[in-house]
Amino acid sequence: MIRIQAARLLDDLQALARIGATEDGGVSRPAMSEIDLLGRAWFRDRAAQDGFTVQQDGAGNLSAGLRSQRAGAPTLLIGSHLDTVPDGGRYDGALGVLSALEVLRAVRDHHIDLPFHLEAISFTDEEGTILGLFGSLAASGQLTAHDFDQAAARVGMETLAAGLMRLGITPETALQARRADDLLGYVELHIEQGRRLERAGLRIGVVTAIVGIRAFWLHFKGEAAHAGTMPMADRKDALWGAAHFAQRARQVVMEQFTPGVMNCGLAHVSPGAFNIVPDQVRLALEFRHGADADLDHMQTVLLDLAQSVADEYGLTVEAVRAGGHHPAPMDAGLMTAIEAAADALDLSHTRLMSFAGHDAQAMCHIAPSAMLFVPSVAGISHNPREFTRDDDVVNGANVLLHTVLEMAKRAR
Amino acid sequence: MIRIQAARLLDDLQALARIGATEDGGVSRPAMSEIDLLGRAWFRDRAAQDGFTVQQDGAGNLSAGLRSQRAGAPTLLIGSHLDTVPDGGRYDGALGVLSALEVLRAVRDHHIDLPFHLEAISFTDEEGTILGLFGSLAASGQLTAHDFDQAAARVGMETLAAGLMRLGITPETALQARRADDLLGYVELHIEQGRRLERAGLRIGVVTAIVGIRAFWLHFKGEAAHAGTMPMADRKDALWGAAHFAQRARQVVMEQFTPGVMNCGLAHVSPGAFNIVPDQVRLALEFRHGADADLDHMQTVLLDLAQSVADEYGLTVEAVRAGGHHPAPMDAGLMTAIEAAADALDLSHTRLMSFAGHDAQAMCHIAPSAMLFVPSVAGISHNPREFTRDDDVVNGANVLLHTVLEMAKRAR
Repeated sequence: MIRIQAARLLDDLQALARIGATEDGGVSRPAMSEIDLLGRAWFRDRAAQDGFTVQQDGAGNLSAGLRSQRAGAPTLLIGSHLDTVPDGGRYDGALGVLSALEVLRAVRDHHIDLPFHLEAISFTDEEGTILGLFGSLAASGQLTAHDFDQAAARVGMETLAAGLMRLGITPETALQARRADDLLGYVELHIEQGRRLERAGLRIGVVTAIVGIRAFWLHFKGEAAHAGTMPMADRKDALWGAAHFAQRARQVVMEQFTPGVMNCGLAHVSPGAFNIVPDQVRLALEFRHGADADLDHMQTVLLDLAQSVADEYGLTVEAVRAGGHHPAPMDAGLMTAIEAAADALDLSHTRLMSFAGHDAQAMCHIAPSAMLFVPSVAGISHNPREFTRDDDVVNGANVLLHTVLEMAKRAR
Repeated sequence: MIRIQAARLLDDLQALARIGATEDGGVSRPAMSEIDLLGRAWFRDRAAQDGFTVQQDGAGNLSAGLRSQRAGAPTLLIGSHLDTVPDGGRYDGALGVLSALEVLRAVRDHHIDLPFHLEAISFTDEEGTILGLFGSLAASGQLTAHDFDQAAARVGMETLAAGLMRLGITPETALQARRADDLLGYVELHIEQGRRLERAGLRIGVVTAIVGIRAFWLHFKGEAAHAGTMPMADRKDALWGAAHFAQRARQVVMEQFTPGVMNCGLAHVSPGAFNIVPDQVRLALEFRHGADADLDHMQTVLLDLAQSVADEYGLTVEAVRAGGHHPAPMDAGLMTAIEAAADALDLSHTRLMSFAGHDAQAMCHIAPSAMLFVPSVAGISHNPREFTRDDDVVNGANVLLHTVLEMAKRAR
């Protein structure tokens, strides 16, 4: 059974981690920064040394390609992203891109003629330094002029323009970067950023969906009152209501919606004094699940709960939508291909949802997409302490390789 | 049975309410303002018309006196304050001062020779425009130079100096304003600022104590985490802990400490984003009760609760004292005198605590002190809609008069 060259891949990971290395062992390589340019140049050079040509599209996405001999062959994309969050870790994104490059080398080294073109791709700005999922949104034809307006409003026009200029792209080139070729699929290897695999002692996670998110501001309103003279039973205390909601929502979601999750990440209390019963609390509610039907159900249950808690405390509550996005279901065929690859390598696996966003959630709009996870020690992510053991790195790359081989088998 | 002249008192209340009247039917007569000077001048003139001389002490406290014929007679103080909060009501403070003046007139009209000097007093700045309880703290010898520093820091040196200058006083005169005479007691009539009397259908409240207050910042600390990837059961969510505490504290106080009360009036959540599990919540906790022993007990129970909730949620919690003051017990003898007066007038009454601060809490340090309450419609206070029915105003003044007569009977 063929395998990737572990030492070559681990050396690449080390080399890339030195670009933007921070004192505390992490990596800062924010998209479109000077240091991101160095990382991208390193990838071009590394791929060139291996004999691959790297191409850049109108959104700055970098691809090393291995052409199939077949006439009219489709393309299988594998990859992730080279950028990091500020003071992030060594694995998030880098693992997927470097494993993809290593899979290209392994296929080439073993003289395997695939029935599809194989392309190791790094998508621009997955982390959102300027505009999250920039490269994959562009490649999947979902980027809009409005996204640039929002990015400019958020980071400033100068920062946006400077970032695009560094990559040698413009809004116009990015808006025309939709892949026109025949795509067989997109497969992304990533660290889990959670601890479900570690907890379960499993080696490979097969992602069923990238969760959708819905966010609401819950605006509880009662009546301000003197915190001494107003008897407790007579108060219309917006904080008590909001607190009760946060408590009950937690219970309800854990009992009824696991593995779906919820978070109350922020609360504005007014008027906001020790001696005044609060008349208003604006509570930030976010919940995530793997299918729109689940999100619909959660929304009904949580907003009904907010209303019943408000009634109980003599309050009103208004729910104002504050963003979110649809879940991205992964492709069933690719999922079974990943499972077949893991089985072939005798690696234990499970299906799970991804609770973080990834380029696959954009790419699934134009191609069957899938993701595989390897364990993150203690689930730590977006943090210098982010860590994945070498054997898990190598396992992940081998499963990616054998997923490609399984897809080749199926295509024949 | 002698009674006060209802029309005379109600006319006075109307006349005073025109000074600083706001468009919405309220009154703005903040202490030491130009408009407060007009209110004070009106009181001087009114008392002078009635044949009383008004004197001002070094803290700006105004007194109309009725001298006893007895050699070496002590003084019974009755009164309240003429200042209001900005956009306040017509009764808070004014009722007590004008009823006291009316009691002087009634005693004088009926040629009653009291065995004590009777003094209708208005204390300076009860509401704290510049320095809360300024006049009663000064009269009871509790004002300190530090209080002036704090007032200057809060309102600015210029505002403080201008305010004192308007009253014709200085920090030096105020610091020497402690009453040197023999005080028999201090009795204050006030609106309830709550709805316990209204709810119970009772006419007179006899105050057992002015509650003490203790305030704490509860600093719950957990761990920030990705609101998607971190399973809910593994989170150390400071907001869930703080919310659970606020809920449980409410239950515990209502079940174990009524009529004591608690309030969580403010919460600072960090880092504060929809998609980040909060690692820190600073929760403002305040609780009130009528005796230090009760406050000690509440403090133990509430801080233990905070710790046990923190343990349950994998958090730490730190409690930092944020101010407060001791309860002020009212005088048992004066309480029975008020009850005897209400009984003589066939007015229903009950004992209750005052949950708001009053000049009596300062005066009780140098003289037996007591308060009686009349109903506030809907408990509304510090608000233009503050209202007390005319018959309750008159009842209160009559009970104040008969309390004075009861004290006279007891002194003979």
